[in-house]
Amino acid sequence: MRPGPYERHRELLHSVVRALAAGECHRPFSEATVQDAADAGMRSTRTAGKVFGSLLGRPFDLVQPGEVARVRTESSPYGLGLAIAYPRCEPSELVAAAARAAPGWRAAGTGQRAGLAVEILRRLNTRSHELALAVHHTTGQPLRAALHAAGPRAQDRALEVVAQAFAESERVPSGLHWESAGRRGGPPLALRGTCTLVPRGVSLLIGCPDFPLWNGYPGLFASLVTGNPVVVAPHPRSVLPLAITVRVARQVLEEAGHDPNLVTLAVSEPGRRAHLRLATDPAVRIVDFTGSARVADWLERHAAQATVFANRTGLNTVVVDSTDDYPGLVRGLALSSCLCNGTVRTTPQNILVPEHGFDTDEGPKTLRDLGTDLGDAVDRLLGHPVRAAGVLGATTADEVRAAMTEAARYGPVVHASGPVPHPRHPGAELLSPLLVRLRASDEQVYTREWPGPVSFLVGTESTSHSLALLRRTVARHGALYASVHSTDTLVLAAAETAALDAGVPLVENLDDLPADPSSALADLPGGGAHFVTGRFRVVRSRRHATPTAPVPAPARRAGAAAELVDR
Amino acid sequence: MRPGPYERHRELLHSVVRALAAGECHRPFSEATVQDAADAGMRSTRTAGKVFGSLLGRPFDLVQPGEVARVRTESSPYGLGLAIAYPRCEPSELVAAAARAAPGWRAAGTGQRAGLAVEILRRLNTRSHELALAVHHTTGQPLRAALHAAGPRAQDRALEVVAQAFAESERVPSGLHWESAGRRGGPPLALRGTCTLVPRGVSLLIGCPDFPLWNGYPGLFASLVTGNPVVVAPHPRSVLPLAITVRVARQVLEEAGHDPNLVTLAVSEPGRRAHLRLATDPAVRIVDFTGSARVADWLERHAAQATVFANRTGLNTVVVDSTDDYPGLVRGLALSSCLCNGTVRTTPQNILVPEHGFDTDEGPKTLRDLGTDLGDAVDRLLGHPVRAAGVLGATTADEVRAAMTEAARYGPVVHASGPVPHPRHPGAELLSPLLVRLRASDEQVYTREWPGPVSFLVGTESTSHSLALLRRTVARHGALYASVHSTDTLVLAAAETAALDAGVPLVENLDDLPADPSSALADLPGGGAHFVTGRFRVVRSRRHATPTAPVPAPARRAGAAAELVDR
Repeated sequence: MRPGPYERHRELLHSVVRALAAGECHRPFSEATVQDAADAGMRSTRTAGKVFGSLLGRPFDLVQPGEVARVRTESSPYGLGLAIAYPRCEPSELVAAAARAAPGWRAAGTGQRAGLAVEILRRLNTRSHELALAVHHTTGQPLRAALHAAGPRAQDRALEVVAQAFAESERVPSGLHWESAGRRGGPPLALRGTCTLVPRGVSLLIGCPDFPLWNGYPGLFASLVTGNPVVVAPHPRSVLPLAITVRVARQVLEEAGHDPNLVTLAVSEPGRRAHLRLATDPAVRIVDFTGSARVADWLERHAAQATVFANRTGLNTVVVDSTDDYPGLVRGLALSSCLCNGTVRTTPQNILVPEHGFDTDEGPKTLRDLGTDLGDAVDRLLGHPVRAAGVLGATTADEVRAAMTEAARYGPVVHASGPVPHPRHPGAELLSPLLVRLRASDEQVYTREWPGPVSFLVGTESTSHSLALLRRTVARHGALYASVHSTDTLVLAAAETAALDAGVPLVENLDDLPADPSSALADLPGGGAHFVTGRFRVVRSRRHATPTAPVPAPARRAGAAAELVDR
Repeated sequence: MRPGPYERHRELLHSVVRALAAGECHRPFSEATVQDAADAGMRSTRTAGKVFGSLLGRPFDLVQPGEVARVRTESSPYGLGLAIAYPRCEPSELVAAAARAAPGWRAAGTGQRAGLAVEILRRLNTRSHELALAVHHTTGQPLRAALHAAGPRAQDRALEVVAQAFAESERVPSGLHWESAGRRGGPPLALRGTCTLVPRGVSLLIGCPDFPLWNGYPGLFASLVTGNPVVVAPHPRSVLPLAITVRVARQVLEEAGHDPNLVTLAVSEPGRRAHLRLATDPAVRIVDFTGSARVADWLERHAAQATVFANRTGLNTVVVDSTDDYPGLVRGLALSSCLCNGTVRTTPQNILVPEHGFDTDEGPKTLRDLGTDLGDAVDRLLGHPVRAAGVLGATTADEVRAAMTEAARYGPVVHASGPVPHPRHPGAELLSPLLVRLRASDEQVYTREWPGPVSFLVGTESTSHSLALLRRTVARHGALYASVHSTDTLVLAAAETAALDAGVPLVENLDDLPADPSSALADLPGGGAHFVTGRFRVVRSRRHATPTAPVPAPARRAGAAAELVDR
């Protein structure tokens, strides 16, 4: 007999669980060698390109319930005509189909669900280059960055969630057994019980336009492994990466004898706001979202029937106090402010620097110095067109241009945003980052979440003032990360406290910023257990320990409540 | 040196953690012998009575910030003049004081917090009889039942939550260490990081009027151990049990050098609805509530800034399919329908029975037979005044009488509710339960949550129909438990599935019902991990593994992101 999905992936799952518990990083997909990849059937870039090309200008092959039309919502910022026609299905029918599929999935148990999740990831792994092309052409990310955000690293990130969900589920004791005092002088009452994981219900993944897989996989796989069917509602600008993912998941599920409607795709035209209607559907009990605090607040207020896992991209903040490597600091900030396109929300938006200056290995520097040096470093970085095209993404959204124009009005422009030619795609709009100097009192400006490559250099009274601003603004608006540069251990400790108060991950004296999938820092064990344990409840049933051999009637009939009447 | 609170209670905590993981029951407080209790300084009933008496008619000794008045909100349904004057404090000042106390409590770490929580429970244990008197005189529960709901059993229940919160927190790896590929050909980038538990923020416990401690302790202690300060807002009808608890907690915290404002009492007059204003305070991030689906729905909709842990008392449902112990079934149902007072929500409200009858060891019985037999059993049970007073509680709320009058209009009354004299308290209003026969089509009646001792005998087409009703009505309105009586293993399996679908705990062929603290079934390991993991997040900080011996500059400056520019 062929081993089941759990038996096949048991060792892999347990190795990731062990690494997570030890605070280590185990990344089987990223660590695989070229030979491993070939053995696993991973397609080459060239083959993937052909497969990708074959998808364009055609209906996307996906048969789902409630199809009412075909819709095309994407266009490549690199000028390729995508014109892929996805099924638009009646959202309520997708939810109903998911709800029908749920009992069988619940009954399959955690082991089988985790095994099938790994199977889906292995299948996705063989299509990493195709997924990277899909991310590249829909989000505008450079191809190499897209491979990080869509390939083995994204699969490893998902695998960590699978392992965590598996471990948390396995921790629930399957059987309960206890004795309770019977009536006075009588025999103790022996009881046994069962603990069953009860998934919350239909889960909704609202796809984001910049990192559809990197940000989407954790919620998708956490829900699946904990027994919840998932309706995937991609952002209209970036459907394809999630559409391929959904199709692969449905194939794996169907081959294993499960209802493919456990994972469905809900595409619609931008104007329909189908994701918001889905989020408030009474049958939708879990919502995953990554994006602006504004939408996250809306979801938490209006999707009251659901548990909302909202990851607020917010105000990524860098606090500069002092450094023993000023050139490295400048280069790192320049690179981070460029590593973004029209929609990516990993830009270090607010760079907080003492107005009067700070100490470096090259002597004291002022805010003005830092601005000038940063502008120069950006120009150097983008000076070579091929290199520039490998860093900057292509702009996908109109609102970016308007935002850049507006932001430039609020303070002295340290580096103006301008078009950068793409060596191979003349139609692609690449924009260099805008750097604007602000005062601490301009809080109304820098506490907005700005789309696109906008960074503010905010002059503060002191590092204490910077940390107070970090604490207050990030606690309110969220952020993907905070970063601090200091040679003073007291300042580092104060920054840690401020970051904890604001609830944001912190990096210390690292030039690389952690939110980007390309970053070494992005390879991190997952966050709190709540992300998986919030997706199920534990329900108990109980009965006498010996139902086949009935306890003599007096003892059996007497719960401890009978004590009340027997005094 | 004196051992710290963690060292002192380390063994106890670990033994409860082990029992929970094994699905066993370890109840140190309930299992303590009389000698243990004496050693622990547990007061006798007589001493406790004196202490309790000394509280009456006086200001309650509690010094808290923002006191604006003293309020008296309680009256004993047994006729005792309570007249205890509690401080009414400005709610926003209590929240602000809690927020100020939070950083020190977070810094104390899980071990110390769990140790102090055990210390609080040990101190409460010595006052079990005093707490029982407080519950008896404010909720109307008979004294013996009140001891179950307020004494060692409630403390064990809290201890389980403390152990679970401790175990979940300890599971977070304290240190992270990993390597990431550096630039091509360069050395790998070694990083290390810290995981820190970040509590969500100020927690609000909304006290319930019937089981203020039994239902209140889990949320109170889960929040405290995970690092969140707690504002306790008792129901105006039952303040004293939680007021004593808050005072004990503050004493223990203060003696250990912590800010006592980590636990405060927010009492107010009924009309002020202070608990709802507290629930929507932006700084309140956790809300615990046990009660009606109506209020739970309101909280989930309006307290959008907080994680709401709502335990819906809802529609407790019994499905009768068949039995090999008809007299036991009748006696059990009669006892359960009596074990309640004006507000207790543990009554089996909906008893679903096939209209055409069901099989028993005494031959087939109809719904009508069951009604008659149940009415007779209730009368037998309440026939002796002393016994009746030990079972029935005293009615505390006016809405109960109105509800009984209304419910009696909807169908044939099988057992009318009437006054039962209390042998020692002539002023106490004891009511026998009301039993009304309904049709399955009367769904509008039996899907309301009725206060007080009202049970409906609902005639259904078949057991399948009963299970479908259970599934639908409980999934919508919640319930503390479901119960099934059947000699058919297929029916039991179908009932288990229906209960899982509805997300409600099930008991099978047990005459005792599980929601009452007096029940043997109430001694149960806790539910899902979400109840504790939802109260904190894990925030990571990271840095180079060797900050004191800097890595050579090229490797140090190169994150993997640098790959992007180095092709």
